Amino acid sequence: MKPDYTFAENFPSAFDFVKASNSQAVQQLQDFIRIPSVSSDPKKAKDVKRCAKWLAQHLHTIGLHRVRVLPTGGHPIVYGEWLGATGKPTVLIYGHYDVQPAEPESEWKIPPFAGIVRDGFIYGRGASDDKGQLFTHIKAIEALLKTTRYLPVNVKCLFEGEEEIGSPNLLPFIQRNRRALQADAVVMSDTRMLSQDQPALTYALRGQVALELEVHGPDHDLHSGNFGGAVHDPLQALCEVIARLHDRTGHIAVPGFYDRVRRWDNSERSYLAQAGPSDADILHEAGASTAWGEQGYSLYERVTLRPSLAITGMRGGHGGVGPKGVIPCQAIAKLSFRLVPDQEPAEIEQLVRRYIECITPPTVRIRIKTHIHSRPVLLDRKNPVMRAAAVAYWRIFGRMPVWLRSGGTIPVVSQFQDVLEMPTVLMGFASPGDNLHGQNEKLSVKNFHRGILTCMAFLEEYGRISQRTRKQGLKPAGVQYAD
Amino acid sequence: MKPDYTFAENFPSAFDFVKASNSQAVQQLQDFIRIPSVSSDPKKAKDVKRCAKWLAQHLHTIGLHRVRVLPTGGHPIVYGEWLGATGKPTVLIYGHYDVQPAEPESEWKIPPFAGIVRDGFIYGRGASDDKGQLFTHIKAIEALLKTTRYLPVNVKCLFEGEEEIGSPNLLPFIQRNRRALQADAVVMSDTRMLSQDQPALTYALRGQVALELEVHGPDHDLHSGNFGGAVHDPLQALCEVIARLHDRTGHIAVPGFYDRVRRWDNSERSYLAQAGPSDADILHEAGASTAWGEQGYSLYERVTLRPSLAITGMRGGHGGVGPKGVIPCQAIAKLSFRLVPDQEPAEIEQLVRRYIECITPPTVRIRIKTHIHSRPVLLDRKNPVMRAAAVAYWRIFGRMPVWLRSGGTIPVVSQFQDVLEMPTVLMGFASPGDNLHGQNEKLSVKNFHRGILTCMAFLEEYGRISQRTRKQGLKPAGVQYAD
Repeated sequence: MKPDYTFAENFPSAFDFVKASNSQAVQQLQDFIRIPSVSSDPKKAKDVKRCAKWLAQHLHTIGLHRVRVLPTGGHPIVYGEWLGATGKPTVLIYGHYDVQPAEPESEWKIPPFAGIVRDGFIYGRGASDDKGQLFTHIKAIEALLKTTRYLPVNVKCLFEGEEEIGSPNLLPFIQRNRRALQADAVVMSDTRMLSQDQPALTYALRGQVALELEVHGPDHDLHSGNFGGAVHDPLQALCEVIARLHDRTGHIAVPGFYDRVRRWDNSERSYLAQAGPSDADILHEAGASTAWGEQGYSLYERVTLRPSLAITGMRGGHGGVGPKGVIPCQAIAKLSFRLVPDQEPAEIEQLVRRYIECITPPTVRIRIKTHIHSRPVLLDRKNPVMRAAAVAYWRIFGRMPVWLRSGGTIPVVSQFQDVLEMPTVLMGFASPGDNLHGQNEKLSVKNFHRGILTCMAFLEEYGRISQRTRKQGLKPAGVQYAD
Repeated sequence: MKPDYTFAENFPSAFDFVKASNSQAVQQLQDFIRIPSVSSDPKKAKDVKRCAKWLAQHLHTIGLHRVRVLPTGGHPIVYGEWLGATGKPTVLIYGHYDVQPAEPESEWKIPPFAGIVRDGFIYGRGASDDKGQLFTHIKAIEALLKTTRYLPVNVKCLFEGEEEIGSPNLLPFIQRNRRALQADAVVMSDTRMLSQDQPALTYALRGQVALELEVHGPDHDLHSGNFGGAVHDPLQALCEVIARLHDRTGHIAVPGFYDRVRRWDNSERSYLAQAGPSDADILHEAGASTAWGEQGYSLYERVTLRPSLAITGMRGGHGGVGPKGVIPCQAIAKLSFRLVPDQEPAEIEQLVRRYIECITPPTVRIRIKTHIHSRPVLLDRKNPVMRAAAVAYWRIFGRMPVWLRSGGTIPVVSQFQDVLEMPTVLMGFASPGDNLHGQNEKLSVKNFHRGILTCMAFLEEYGRISQRTRKQGLKPAGVQYAD
């Protein structure tokens, strides 16, 4: 393994600072996790706001300038910058301080918002996704500023509070602030490595259409004895609809759904087979004994090259312990379609809505709400920012990263591509088994530490590489916010 | 309408007492409702116990003897008796002080356990089912004992705390206490009238098999992006199973399910059509615009002569507000099969289990729990106890009751029939629209009052009628409890 001294040669005191302040950084991350910033839960809106303030305060403390908590139509955006590297390129660091819901909390062995370290892991909702990973950049900047008073590139930090609900207010924000957010590249850490010691650069993300289906029947809950057999139970009707969303071979049954799905050539599929996780790896991580899905594709291909539909939640009638003799007046299901190039979210939603209307029995009424629209993404693997990230991983982890596709979705990536036209690098530090979105989410303390060092190395490498390749430009201007 | 004076002639002072103490009786019922005795919820076990004690204390106060709170394997049974009517028959009064769950409480316009009177109705979970109806008997006994110090018959009161979970501990209790519970007839008020002013005697109840289906997939919740398409979502699998429990014509698809369903002749079906609620009545009460179910049967027949299956609850993944990118590791559905003569619960459960095992996809595991087993019931309409009840209604409501079938289930009725071989009368005071098991359950103050008077009239009428018809017997013995 490549030792750390290469790095230490360049920033010996920053390296020492990270080493010496590691336990303090972990404690700060624990505090960060303890704020339950669940963006989807209106009852947690105050916590989300508190979390934004905490983060802004922290950015101020480490020495960033023009730190702001910027209101949006939803949860606020936290911004801070350091533009003192005259003549150097600018990196936009993106992250999100909001988290997924943690229910059912009873299934966590460690409470999701306790922020507890055990057996070398920091546990808690957001430990990996994305508080822990976002924090690696902050701690890297802090170490450099505290020891050298300087950064090798200019940085603009943009941390949002709505990633887990599809970033509904980010696109208008970046459209309004297109010039202020201009940078040479975007970096974000919200993805996974291939394994604990094998870093990876993610170059593909699936898109998403998340919908909520409400089935309405009688206008109030009914006694299941007095009415059972005479009215259509909304839960039953909902099951009947959902059962028809897949055919018997595991394909999504919505007509036209696969029309725009890109076919990949053998070289891409061979690379996936060679570099990516095996079927056994994926089943092991899932804790599942049996695979499921489209024949003719490996599991890695099924979750990356191919679109999918998961039923992510259902609710209706009596969900508590024991029986209850009731026909509920309504039933709800949440659907998450993951999309691949060249599927378009708006078009897919229309196809799905049309099909569901067709298959809904006339004995109930259906309503469909849209939660998330996000386009699938393919990143340019040849951009200098990718090279800088690869070298940074190599310097800290002693291994070159592999190229990975992710089945997940980071809405902002396609928005950055479409609006700001900036190259993006996804430099993840989470590992398989960290259980993002599930119970007992965690991040290894060791990789949190290596993540900080990698972020430092990345800033240095990008300053060096882009020096040679980027077009000459003016010193980046400070941020001017649109109204 | 037949005026009340006939009754007043017999018990003028008791009648006055009921009239004078009516608002006090309502207040006591409000207190009774305020104890959230939800038998299915383990967290409410203390409330159930508290409710039993409250009820026992009340029985003691009104003058019953040998009042006990008797422990069972589950929630306690409350017992009290008055055996001072030497040479007169004995009536066993059954009721239940437990209630259905009230979730989602946010959908009640009046909190379910506030016990509030508004616009002539007592609102709250249990107002009708069964606290309010049980209370009519208690208040009738109180009025008679307080004014005449005497009852026209002997009474044994048996109030259980597990009716809403299928009375799992009542059968062993009555088997052990067969002799102690011996009586000439059983009366219970846990059913409905045809309308607010048209009383009814229920002579048929459906049985029930209540099951809980658990579908297990991966061993923890998964990220729906990282795993969507590679593992079988347990919620999807559960929907696929449930969708196959009915065929397209609304029949239950379980092979053999209808084999023992009794066919009724035209005279029974004509009586139902003439005396029972119309399709429009049932849809109006349900607040539903469209009927559903088996062709060839009226809605009243579908909910009484024919068996049914309702999905009474489902739970899995994220049931809260907004989206969550998760594939849940398990999903749960609650099924309530309502049975008719001559279906047997144990046999039906076996058929259902076998069928579900057949249709469960190999990519998930399924577990089935049994909640309730209860046999369907047909009561003897010619028994003197029925006549006594009919005359009592006529005296108070001014109308003879109609014969009704109920789609609901009262497990104890078949148990009393099978073990104690006693005739039973179901003398209900709830009305359509009281929304038993649903939100905003209520009971009209007027019918609560008329119910008390009817219960008094019933005791008197039964004393009189049975005098002429019953076999000569010894003075009923006091209760001896088995170990």
